[in-house]
Amino acid sequence: MDAIDVGIRFKREAPALAEPSDPLVLRDWFVDDLPAVGVGAEAVTAEIVERLLPLCKNEAHPQFCGFGDTGDDPAALAAGIIAMFTQQNLINQRFDAPVATFIEIAVLRWLREALGYVNPQREDIQTVWNVGGLITTGGTMSNTIAMMLARENQAPGTMQSGVEDPERFSIIVPAGVGHYSVRAACTWIGTGAHIIQVPTIGFRYDQDELRKALAEHEGRIMSVVAYAGDSRTQTIDRLADVAQIVREADPRIWLHADACWGLPMAFSERLRPRLAGIEQFDSVTVDPHKVLAIPYSLSALLVREPESLRTVSTFSDLIMQEDFAFGQVTPFVGTKSWGSLKLWAMMRSHGRAGLGQIAERRVALAGRFAELVDAHPRLVRLHDPDMAAVAFCYLPPGIEDGTGDVEAVNTFNKALHSALLADRRWFLHTFTLPDDLGRIAPGATVQALRLVSINPHLTEQHLTDLLAHLDALALDLC
Amino acid sequence: MDAIDVGIRFKREAPALAEPSDPLVLRDWFVDDLPAVGVGAEAVTAEIVERLLPLCKNEAHPQFCGFGDTGDDPAALAAGIIAMFTQQNLINQRFDAPVATFIEIAVLRWLREALGYVNPQREDIQTVWNVGGLITTGGTMSNTIAMMLARENQAPGTMQSGVEDPERFSIIVPAGVGHYSVRAACTWIGTGAHIIQVPTIGFRYDQDELRKALAEHEGRIMSVVAYAGDSRTQTIDRLADVAQIVREADPRIWLHADACWGLPMAFSERLRPRLAGIEQFDSVTVDPHKVLAIPYSLSALLVREPESLRTVSTFSDLIMQEDFAFGQVTPFVGTKSWGSLKLWAMMRSHGRAGLGQIAERRVALAGRFAELVDAHPRLVRLHDPDMAAVAFCYLPPGIEDGTGDVEAVNTFNKALHSALLADRRWFLHTFTLPDDLGRIAPGATVQALRLVSINPHLTEQHLTDLLAHLDALALDLC
Repeated sequence: MDAIDVGIRFKREAPALAEPSDPLVLRDWFVDDLPAVGVGAEAVTAEIVERLLPLCKNEAHPQFCGFGDTGDDPAALAAGIIAMFTQQNLINQRFDAPVATFIEIAVLRWLREALGYVNPQREDIQTVWNVGGLITTGGTMSNTIAMMLARENQAPGTMQSGVEDPERFSIIVPAGVGHYSVRAACTWIGTGAHIIQVPTIGFRYDQDELRKALAEHEGRIMSVVAYAGDSRTQTIDRLADVAQIVREADPRIWLHADACWGLPMAFSERLRPRLAGIEQFDSVTVDPHKVLAIPYSLSALLVREPESLRTVSTFSDLIMQEDFAFGQVTPFVGTKSWGSLKLWAMMRSHGRAGLGQIAERRVALAGRFAELVDAHPRLVRLHDPDMAAVAFCYLPPGIEDGTGDVEAVNTFNKALHSALLADRRWFLHTFTLPDDLGRIAPGATVQALRLVSINPHLTEQHLTDLLAHLDALALDLC
Repeated sequence: MDAIDVGIRFKREAPALAEPSDPLVLRDWFVDDLPAVGVGAEAVTAEIVERLLPLCKNEAHPQFCGFGDTGDDPAALAAGIIAMFTQQNLINQRFDAPVATFIEIAVLRWLREALGYVNPQREDIQTVWNVGGLITTGGTMSNTIAMMLARENQAPGTMQSGVEDPERFSIIVPAGVGHYSVRAACTWIGTGAHIIQVPTIGFRYDQDELRKALAEHEGRIMSVVAYAGDSRTQTIDRLADVAQIVREADPRIWLHADACWGLPMAFSERLRPRLAGIEQFDSVTVDPHKVLAIPYSLSALLVREPESLRTVSTFSDLIMQEDFAFGQVTPFVGTKSWGSLKLWAMMRSHGRAGLGQIAERRVALAGRFAELVDAHPRLVRLHDPDMAAVAFCYLPPGIEDGTGDVEAVNTFNKALHSALLADRRWFLHTFTLPDDLGRIAPGATVQALRLVSINPHLTEQHLTDLLAHLDALALDLC
């Protein structure tokens, strides 16, 4: 009870960033020996509260604007606590997770339906092979399983025989905006990092270049990956176009969409058209712990053809050979906790309409921030926001928009981000970005700052306060 | 607050097994459409309590004797709640997980020290590459990463180039007792299921056969896997012998020990010698959610040479290139939750002495159950218990010990297990087991029942009650 009280107070009151400490000082404070004699549960809990919590970041604070992993949905938090206490294990159904299995199936179907995949009728769900998705611990794992499906699609039976001739397991990603997880996935699943990067226009595939790459590498491509919200600008690719281009070139290529950021759009009638075509992709990754305020960690991989998951199945007589044992179809996972209850509770508590409103509010707030950036004399917006992210640069004194002094801009923005971290009141994310719209210098790589408008406590007032804060920090840097 | 109250009541009061329900009935009750309009967090929480909890198993109940995933350590539960609320992300250190990173390092070092690995001095921990371990979501993932380390050890650079000539990535496991996860791992990481099964004696490697297999497949073996507690009988292999035999045959082979069950022995002065030699293995998997009452899910992979983890590292400028970012070294995981706080709290609250006592109590209780089995006229014990598991058969009427009518024995034990499940009061695990000690028929595969003595609420009285219950069910079957 103390723990939950502490948790709620932390989310409400803790500052966005933790007290600043040198990592080596933290190391010396906390890397110690296991006590010979135990101190008891109460003393340990007190130690966590007194010593550790002041040194934690609080992503639920509205001034933590770089990401949106708030993890603060009330229904999800309550469900997370109950699920932890129940200790269900979805590796088996009958004795290990009698009802949990069907809650997981329900929520997977809700996600599939939102994305436009056709669900089998309820009475046709006879086994896990009729579900068409699986819950994982994160987008990286979901994407890895997608690449494994692509591998087996390209060369059936590789699971048993092993990879031969890895060059034919190449993947195509958009240059500069592809997420590291699909490249890493290929290194993990044994196909190697045979990554074909296709140039982009406005953070989307240059479709002519995509056609060229498909022709050039014909027969050697196992997957084309497109983003329904890349991890930098949250730009949604022209998914229907990409699907058509790829299918025309080679209908056997596994089409994978990473919709880790894009999922919420699917619940809004108004925003849903931006995802059009996603239902033609063979697999889609979504990341509720990033975009639906679910406490860590929860992702899902959905597949267009439910039966395709059979190609990556696992057999053992330690996993029950029963119709609904998810242990048959979750690579990298044996014991499987009931994380899906958090998402089931969150989605049920908001309903489709509430989820749509959440998405619309975020998009509107990002749009408002884009206006403020555009109106600011020293800020340059680097993309046209599709969703809840706005990436921009702060121009240092003496540098004007379009002058092309990329190095000066990048140095200044790096320094500005360091000042932001040191000050601790606000957090924006920073990363390098191709200057696809040529706002600083066409083709250059720029150091961007990024705001994300996912936090439900973020208001317009915060946006203006943040810009005033940036101005003050920038002034100090001059 | 309601949620935690519910959780505690569930663990204390819910029966071992859920109300019996046909899976298809559960499907029809719970696989529904996403509501158009939300019902709110309170209504959803009430629905979980009223509709779902009565259909959950309760592994913390002492009559759930088939496994020991009780997840009921008070310090771990409190830490699990707090960690969920803090939403730290160990992919990065400075802004994402300032102190969480060092708690994870501390607990990894406690595990390493218990196993006999040499830890670098605290002041020599300058980066994640000096830690020598990583926290994962389960034993299956830990074992998969171990196999990936073996793959890179066998053919450095495979991460980038992909697998070529998969036959040279064979692994050796003990026949009949190897866990499915290492075989599955090889299918996932692209080396294929090239599994060499070596015969066992008493559920340990037949050492002569091991030598023969090493000679026969020389140059093609990437790893030898040994069990410090296999997943059926929890037998601990002769780890020092296995290490010596393998090193003599080929010192380059990656030695992996699966100590998912064996970890607690490391904390007891008296029991520790049974693990002797484990510190010579290149990697060790441990599974605190199975053996240390940690709520799901938490496992760790420890490596003898900390630097060896570099061979499976990931780079991206979305992961901070900072010294202590665990995101650089956690295959399959991007966003990384603070699960390790549960284990840190549990171990700290008990201390080394308390952890040792927990192990000793379990071993004593399993020993007592073995005596009861031996004293029972219809029960046949199938192995000599090393730890907390006792596997046995119930002889049907008319069949005497050693008569060799395996089919009759297996049919009867399957029926007995079904009766146990239908009755719902007690739960034992069942699986097939090679009759290594020849108690039913040498060389046969027998259908075993298994008790695990991990639950801290399990008493001698429970053991005698369980046997009386089995007798009653057996009588009904005749």
